[in-house]
Amino acid sequence: MSGNTLGKLFCVTTFGESHGPALGAVVDGCPPGLELSEADLQADLEPRRTGTSRFTSQRKEPDAARILSGVFEGRTTGTSIGLVVENTDQRSRDYDKIKDRFRPGHADYAYQQKYGFRDYRGGGRSSARITVATVAAGAIARKYLRERIGLTVQGWLSRMGPIEIEARQPAAARANPFFSPDPDRLPELEDYIWKLRRDGDSVGARITAVARNVPPGLGEPMFDRIDADLAHAMMGINAAKAVEIGDGVAVASQLGSEHRDELTPAGFRSNHSGGTLGGITSGQDLAVHVSLKPTSSIQVPGWTIDLEGNAVEIVTTGRHDPCVGLRAVPIVEAMLLIVVMDHYLRHRAQCGDVASATPVITSPR
Amino acid sequence: MSGNTLGKLFCVTTFGESHGPALGAVVDGCPPGLELSEADLQADLEPRRTGTSRFTSQRKEPDAARILSGVFEGRTTGTSIGLVVENTDQRSRDYDKIKDRFRPGHADYAYQQKYGFRDYRGGGRSSARITVATVAAGAIARKYLRERIGLTVQGWLSRMGPIEIEARQPAAARANPFFSPDPDRLPELEDYIWKLRRDGDSVGARITAVARNVPPGLGEPMFDRIDADLAHAMMGINAAKAVEIGDGVAVASQLGSEHRDELTPAGFRSNHSGGTLGGITSGQDLAVHVSLKPTSSIQVPGWTIDLEGNAVEIVTTGRHDPCVGLRAVPIVEAMLLIVVMDHYLRHRAQCGDVASATPVITSPR
Amino acid sequence: MSGNTLGKLFCVTTFGESHGPALGAVVDGCPPGLELSEADLQADLEPRRTGTSRFTSQRKEPDAARILSGVFEGRTTGTSIGLVVENTDQRSRDYDKIKDRFRPGHADYAYQQKYGFRDYRGGGRSSARITVATVAAGAIARKYLRERIGLTVQGWLSRMGPIEIEARQPAAARANPFFSPDPDRLPELEDYIWKLRRDGDSVGARITAVARNVPPGLGEPMFDRIDADLAHAMMGINAAKAVEIGDGVAVASQLGSEHRDELTPAGFRSNHSGGTLGGITSGQDLAVHVSLKPTSSIQVPGWTIDLEGNAVEIVTTGRHDPCVGLRAVPIVEAMLLIVVMDHYLRHRAQCGDVASATPVITSPR
Amino acid sequence: MSGNTLGKLFCVTTFGESHGPALGAVVDGCPPGLELSEADLQADLEPRRTGTSRFTSQRKEPDAARILSGVFEGRTTGTSIGLVVENTDQRSRDYDKIKDRFRPGHADYAYQQKYGFRDYRGGGRSSARITVATVAAGAIARKYLRERIGLTVQGWLSRMGPIEIEARQPAAARANPFFSPDPDRLPELEDYIWKLRRDGDSVGARITAVARNVPPGLGEPMFDRIDADLAHAMMGINAAKAVEIGDGVAVASQLGSEHRDELTPAGFRSNHSGGTLGGITSGQDLAVHVSLKPTSSIQVPGWTIDLEGNAVEIVTTGRHDPCVGLRAVPIVEAMLLIVVMDHYLRHRAQCGDVASATPVITSPR
Repeated sequence: MSGNTLGKLFCVTTFGESHGPALGAVVDGCPPGLELSEADLQADLEPRRTGTSRFTSQRKEPDAARILSGVFEGRTTGTSIGLVVENTDQRSRDYDKIKDRFRPGHADYAYQQKYGFRDYRGGGRSSARITVATVAAGAIARKYLRERIGLTVQGWLSRMGPIEIEARQPAAARANPFFSPDPDRLPELEDYIWKLRRDGDSVGARITAVARNVPPGLGEPMFDRIDADLAHAMMGINAAKAVEIGDGVAVASQLGSEHRDELTPAGFRSNHSGGTLGGITSGQDLAVHVSLKPTSSIQVPGWTIDLEGNAVEIVTTGRHDPCVGLRAVPIVEAMLLIVVMDHYLRHRAQCGDVASATPVITSPR
Repeated sequence: MSGNTLGKLFCVTTFGESHGPALGAVVDGCPPGLELSEADLQADLEPRRTGTSRFTSQRKEPDAARILSGVFEGRTTGTSIGLVVENTDQRSRDYDKIKDRFRPGHADYAYQQKYGFRDYRGGGRSSARITVATVAAGAIARKYLRERIGLTVQGWLSRMGPIEIEARQPAAARANPFFSPDPDRLPELEDYIWKLRRDGDSVGARITAVARNVPPGLGEPMFDRIDADLAHAMMGINAAKAVEIGDGVAVASQLGSEHRDELTPAGFRSNHSGGTLGGITSGQDLAVHVSLKPTSSIQVPGWTIDLEGNAVEIVTTGRHDPCVGLRAVPIVEAMLLIVVMDHYLRHRAQCGDVASATPVITSPR
Repeated sequence: MSGNTLGKLFCVTTFGESHGPALGAVVDGCPPGLELSEADLQADLEPRRTGTSRFTSQRKEPDAARILSGVFEGRTTGTSIGLVVENTDQRSRDYDKIKDRFRPGHADYAYQQKYGFRDYRGGGRSSARITVATVAAGAIARKYLRERIGLTVQGWLSRMGPIEIEARQPAAARANPFFSPDPDRLPELEDYIWKLRRDGDSVGARITAVARNVPPGLGEPMFDRIDADLAHAMMGINAAKAVEIGDGVAVASQLGSEHRDELTPAGFRSNHSGGTLGGITSGQDLAVHVSLKPTSSIQVPGWTIDLEGNAVEIVTTGRHDPCVGLRAVPIVEAMLLIVVMDHYLRHRAQCGDVASATPVITSPR
Repeated sequence: MSGNTLGKLFCVTTFGESHGPALGAVVDGCPPGLELSEADLQADLEPRRTGTSRFTSQRKEPDAARILSGVFEGRTTGTSIGLVVENTDQRSRDYDKIKDRFRPGHADYAYQQKYGFRDYRGGGRSSARITVATVAAGAIARKYLRERIGLTVQGWLSRMGPIEIEARQPAAARANPFFSPDPDRLPELEDYIWKLRRDGDSVGARITAVARNVPPGLGEPMFDRIDADLAHAMMGINAAKAVEIGDGVAVASQLGSEHRDELTPAGFRSNHSGGTLGGITSGQDLAVHVSLKPTSSIQVPGWTIDLEGNAVEIVTTGRHDPCVGLRAVPIVEAMLLIVVMDHYLRHRAQCGDVASATPVITSPR
């Protein structure tokens, strides 16, 4: 319980460092009888791989997840699923320059103060590389939820630095390296990344993800509201600094008469709430937004201290993403899937024998 | 485990409904030897009481928390602390009108679909009244952290609807019914609330809370980052729709060279990160912002459905807050305190024997 | 998380001391829609009350459990159920004599070393009085399991010191103050207790409890086997020093050909296993045995040390049970019920959509 | 949370099946700075390996645990430690004969009813092979506890079927394949095993393990007593049917004046309690006993049913242990170490700043 486990019933426990021999996850609590193969995981791992686009880190990793347990004759057995992904393209010598000093804005300094020392190679456990394990686990949730209840999840880049992107074609997001839901904006996004590369700088981003066909009733009233658990999961993503549900920060300026989503026999009239009421899914689409800070590994020189506390200058070289948001969409999707899966099982545990006389209504289509 | 427990080592389990006989909490894991009395709890309960200001609900409740266990001869014993607060001013008949229909934007409909029926009196467990128990628990954390490590927490109203409020005098926030950190804005805030009252409408708000003298090292690297656990706790507050750490949603537009907080032997040069790096406290002030939606209990007529799914119109009468944000500051503070306390104990468990050679630096003062 | 919560989905969190104002529990995770009243709890609380028999402590307590939340119009709502029982007959001055010395065999010394001081009145939190809260929580599980799946639990005294008691009429156990499943042995048991009283001594006991109509499939394969969780719960009862499932310690001497319970289309041929195979219920009756040590509060003088570590003599006066086993049957039943309930929900969560083609068989009748 | 995690702060999550590609564990919560290598794990894995003695299963496995994460430059980093052990000598075809029928006394039938199907190869997840992962995790706890507080754990075989073995030389137990603490009994034990082999039968056993130099104060008063958590861990070992602390089942026949361990300034006078008082360690040696049933995989024909419920006869061939107790000592030791480690951290979390004025006393030596 050093916080490497996510979920209460669908539990994902991860391990691994950026430059260790391998990373992985144990997925505990998956229902039995689900058809599952390594190819199912790969479908979700592929979009977040590095080295596949010119716009992200050039580290080349196959990211092939191996299933070590919990699957027999092609189906989940109900026992814990062990997943391992080998690290193959570590270049640890890149990090010798930063081993005795702290990158400003990076976890370096906090790790040093917490643990007394740190694995400085590639950021160790604080590296975004670790999210491979989470994405693999999310692929299992995705398959179960899609096959059993038709629930689907889709994410996209809704902002990169100054560029806000409308979700004109969400389904197109996976087809381009920016996960842009508006393909017309691709040239603009490319130009911006090239400029960042030239400046040796980085930029923040905002990711949006939506779950559709969510049954009503998922989530617990008090502390483990589904939005609270989503906030926990999303803020647990590297670089996340804000999580919004539905209209998010905009609600602070809204009137009650404006925010409330009226109900009609044909469905809700709007979805300001983002699919939750009182922390419980309403049957509307579940919408979450995550704001990610710009990565701290940049080539613009800056001031910091070294291990003994002396003032030193720092410049980070190595293979870094100018915008971590460009690989974050699969991670946000995975987190959303894991949280929904967890609450689907939690709800079945407590309310598996409940019937409501009130008809289920959904989002405006 | 229907989500009524917050925290892993400093565990707060709450119970109670708006119109039941009583509500309360069990606080498990408090270190022994802390001097604690009911007066200590009351100091935190008082600011969130209803019926004390013309600007909030007129329900009159003494909110006197009784300590039933875990304290002996004025000191905590290390065993679980039982807290109970009686409900005295319920007016359940106000709710007969809404028992067979769902307030748009309210938890009513989601509860119905989850549990098959609901306690409609005053919102039942979804009522903001329940936060009394959380605030009482937070008061215990506040006392321990202040006395043992000098950590303090302060919150304020940073936005009410269209009115943004600068934190000119954070210490003044507790002294006025709006928790405004700028007393000069009080007339403007009052006028706005009176207008809302006349319109029978409600409005959203944004709360900010800051912890000072936070030791570095609190938080876990992966899923249970301290900011992730803060996000969980804050999004678990009634009406919360967004949680931000440090610069929050603004980071999506920032450059890396702009966001990173440079380190110097005299301290950090800025605090865009809000006091966490890689999910672990940096020793800087921990800053969190919560956006709250406008309450759904308003007198503006709206459309909804009834228990059988028929279209009906609804108007909510009764004693409601036009802006729930006005009583949310103590709750946000309590959540911040509980999360920090929990991670203080978690850190001591794992790293109680760690020494770092690197000096501790703090926020710019 | 100082260990005052039992269960993962059906969670019972207790608080209270022997001589504090009140004790109680929060029961979280109960399914909604269960008819529940205070009378339902009282039916289970009555048999473990003190002051009702000449053979147990003479402390007079009504043990009336008040339901503070989680029940609306006579049915559970699915939210947390707060239970409180007031303490009314404390006689704390009895304990002044032991406040500065440790009863040998009692928790006194261990509490002192753990917490630095202790609530010495009536044993504080280590008192058997606290089990009132557990029994009340167990009554909720009993009602749900009986009404929904016909599962019943029955316990009895299977040994008191030298007297072993056969389960000739298990149903008769609740009808006598010894919980003896053989009414013919009552005179012998009475004589033995009177002799203990005269000697100022105490004696150990063994309790047996059986659950019938247990569905197969409850329990998790690895660490949270149902027998492991039963062992945890039972060893968590005051004075417990051994937990056995089925044939228990006798299995160490058995042959494989003797121990295994053969299966036939008409049912199992024997039940050496006590109803679990690989940690999962087999559909046979679930049988557990708990051995309880003699209470340490006796009038036979003994040697001990005082708070400063000096050698001193001690004699315990006050109102104590000569055999704590005589009130332990309801507690063992409650623990069995809570664990089964918890695993019933856990199983529904993960395997709620599983169908097995193999017919279910049961215990020999 | 299908029960594959043990511990609350020192958390061991395991995965793997007898005939899958690999098995392993994630150890989360280990303090940073502990020197750790794969050789440290191997020291504990070696004694439980199969194929090393004529008296146990002939399956040949190197059982080499690979550390995949959480260790940097030879020291634990404080992040999760991934461990993997490859399976190399599976002979799955041995199991074709039992795939459509249930071994009496085996987990087969319960798995079928729980999950709807099962991995029948070598018992799948119910195989004792899985304990490799637990033993590797225990080795980490062993190293930490020995190096930091001088705590040591030693186990031995205290009974094999009819043969009771006195602990004349506990330190000798690891030096013989029976883990006998009395080397003089080895010929007798050998003869008995050969007889069992000839008969194609199996036999039960009892294991004892003791922890020395245990600090007082570990354990929580109510449900998570250290003995309760030990009971949970021990009953979670394959084939366990009884767990005893200290005098165990014998306490049911003891008098209070006989059982209580008197305290003197020079130490306790006896250790009937087995090192715990009120669920908290007393500073005496912690003593636990586990009774293991005979394995169900025997060559004596027996009756059972097949997947459709028809009566069929069964004989188990393959490579099985005639007495699973012979390899259980390292597992019992590992469980004891993990539980003590977990409570050591839990105690530090809550009571890290407690000082008791009372001197610490220990077991009679």
